Amino acid sequence: MKAPTIEDVKSAARVLQGKAFRTPLIQSEALDQATGAKIYIKPENLQRTGSFKFRGAFNAISRLSEEMRSRGIAASSSGNHAQGVAAAAAMFGSKATIVMPDDAPALKITRTRNHGAEVVFYDRATEDREAVVESVVEASGAVFIHPFNNTDVIAGQGTVGLEIAEDLVDADVTPDRVLVCTGGGGLTAGVALAVNSQFLDAKIHSVEPEGFDDYKRSLETGQIQANSRQAGSICDAILTPSPGSIGFEINREILSDGLVITDEQARAAVRFAYHDLKLVTEPGGAAALAGLLSNAERWTGETIVVVISGGNIDPPVFSEILESQS
Amino acid sequence: MKAPTIEDVKSAARVLQGKAFRTPLIQSEALDQATGAKIYIKPENLQRTGSFKFRGAFNAISRLSEEMRSRGIAASSSGNHAQGVAAAAAMFGSKATIVMPDDAPALKITRTRNHGAEVVFYDRATEDREAVVESVVEASGAVFIHPFNNTDVIAGQGTVGLEIAEDLVDADVTPDRVLVCTGGGGLTAGVALAVNSQFLDAKIHSVEPEGFDDYKRSLETGQIQANSRQAGSICDAILTPSPGSIGFEINREILSDGLVITDEQARAAVRFAYHDLKLVTEPGGAAALAGLLSNAERWTGETIVVVISGGNIDPPVFSEILESQS
Repeated sequence: MKAPTIEDVKSAARVLQGKAFRTPLIQSEALDQATGAKIYIKPENLQRTGSFKFRGAFNAISRLSEEMRSRGIAASSSGNHAQGVAAAAAMFGSKATIVMPDDAPALKITRTRNHGAEVVFYDRATEDREAVVESVVEASGAVFIHPFNNTDVIAGQGTVGLEIAEDLVDADVTPDRVLVCTGGGGLTAGVALAVNSQFLDAKIHSVEPEGFDDYKRSLETGQIQANSRQAGSICDAILTPSPGSIGFEINREILSDGLVITDEQARAAVRFAYHDLKLVTEPGGAAALAGLLSNAERWTGETIVVVISGGNIDPPVFSEILESQS
Repeated sequence: MKAPTIEDVKSAARVLQGKAFRTPLIQSEALDQATGAKIYIKPENLQRTGSFKFRGAFNAISRLSEEMRSRGIAASSSGNHAQGVAAAAAMFGSKATIVMPDDAPALKITRTRNHGAEVVFYDRATEDREAVVESVVEASGAVFIHPFNNTDVIAGQGTVGLEIAEDLVDADVTPDRVLVCTGGGGLTAGVALAVNSQFLDAKIHSVEPEGFDDYKRSLETGQIQANSRQAGSICDAILTPSPGSIGFEINREILSDGLVITDEQARAAVRFAYHDLKLVTEPGGAAALAGLLSNAERWTGETIVVVISGGNIDPPVFSEILESQS
């Protein structure tokens, strides 16, 4: 598969018209005060299925032939891509089978099933995910949709960036930077592609959890680097082994330096979003906000867009984060 | 004071341009499924200060003379109007003094002070609020801004309805109904005025907590009716003694029947907003959503706008509501 172009993103936007929601750009006095900058939030937690993942999944499934769709769709995900694929497959009348780790958040498992998908569990510690996925695909003949290393998925996620760019143009605003929560880099690549095509000088930053800074290191070395760990951060949505090669082609050319946040900074961002944005966010979905808030002194006087990528969080976890407020 | 006209609402919109945020209209697949209708949410919890109250407060203060503003602003509120007045007064460089019940939510008290306002407490059970307010006004010479029985306040809140109407026209959508959280009826009157001027056939419903259905009874009898209780619902933001006379002039002409919700229905709406809208709402701010969800069978096939009016809720209360999910 080759890297998508801005034309692929625009084509995805036409496919997603009336299917995905067009999320707004939100402003916040509290955020501007906390940073000394002008901040715009792109709240993809308000997207269908509670994260941006629906965009890429729907676009990718739309590009399959009727025959392929009739064989069913398979995916592997800890939850947000799972829900995106399940919802999109249901809209095309395709059966979805999703391989999920058995420690995935309960809400994400329930929601995936609510979209009519079959969930197949594996044990992160003792089972090989790839092997489980392969057996599902072999048994069913289903078409596998990768969560980020897929041209059409990246083009779909790019519509987030396209909407950001369009809304900023309408408001006559030029962004200095865009901060994006980064796992495998599909959303980041799509957003980078779309924003860069409109605003050449805008710096795009990946934001990752400490210990899972594969993208930051890959950007520094120019080569794809892997994480030594597979689990162990509260940011479950953005823990991936290494950058996807397709997105990395784009990100290597466009991205500025990667930011890294601690779990505590992610939790503080979830609290900030609760108190001052009135948005429900999950820690991985608030990573870019955490990167913004924990480097506030760096942004004085700038105009910055922050993508919130998801809001699927179990109530007990959310309550615990709120109550632990210092 | 006389009732505002649609021209007053349009004038308020010009005053609020670039001061209040223009909140979006949000759609939700889950809401459409739960109701069998097409639902649009107007999330005023995303407004500056976390509720619509900033709009009316800013508009009212903007209409005062420099001399009046220099004397300071006084208000009485359990929290949302308090924050709206405090934030607006600060933007005009006026000192704000806010009379609050000593059992007001902690977050609302803190936030009001954070905007630079002085807070004067009174005891709901043993002290007469009016007397406390009067002593504040007499001592300081401050100008009192009523939370709802004020022409300019109602005109400011009406910009919520103006934005709803404009966005629906842009989307080529005609609403069948608009549901509004109702305390003293200022927001409801402003929204009714603005929506009615664009969509004559749209039915507008007030939504109130059980035991505080003064608006419903006032609409039924055509005369202003009072509540027998002053406290005792989780919907603290919308507990008022009786409809304001100015707003009632408008609402009496335009509103359809009033809806009444239980505290448990308000809590269920807060949970729905968390899970499916990814929005932080307070129970009083989710009253209209509760009215929608608890009468779902009534709306089949219709197009309905639901105003979420506020999201200022203390974390322990929010956690308790989330965790009590059945």
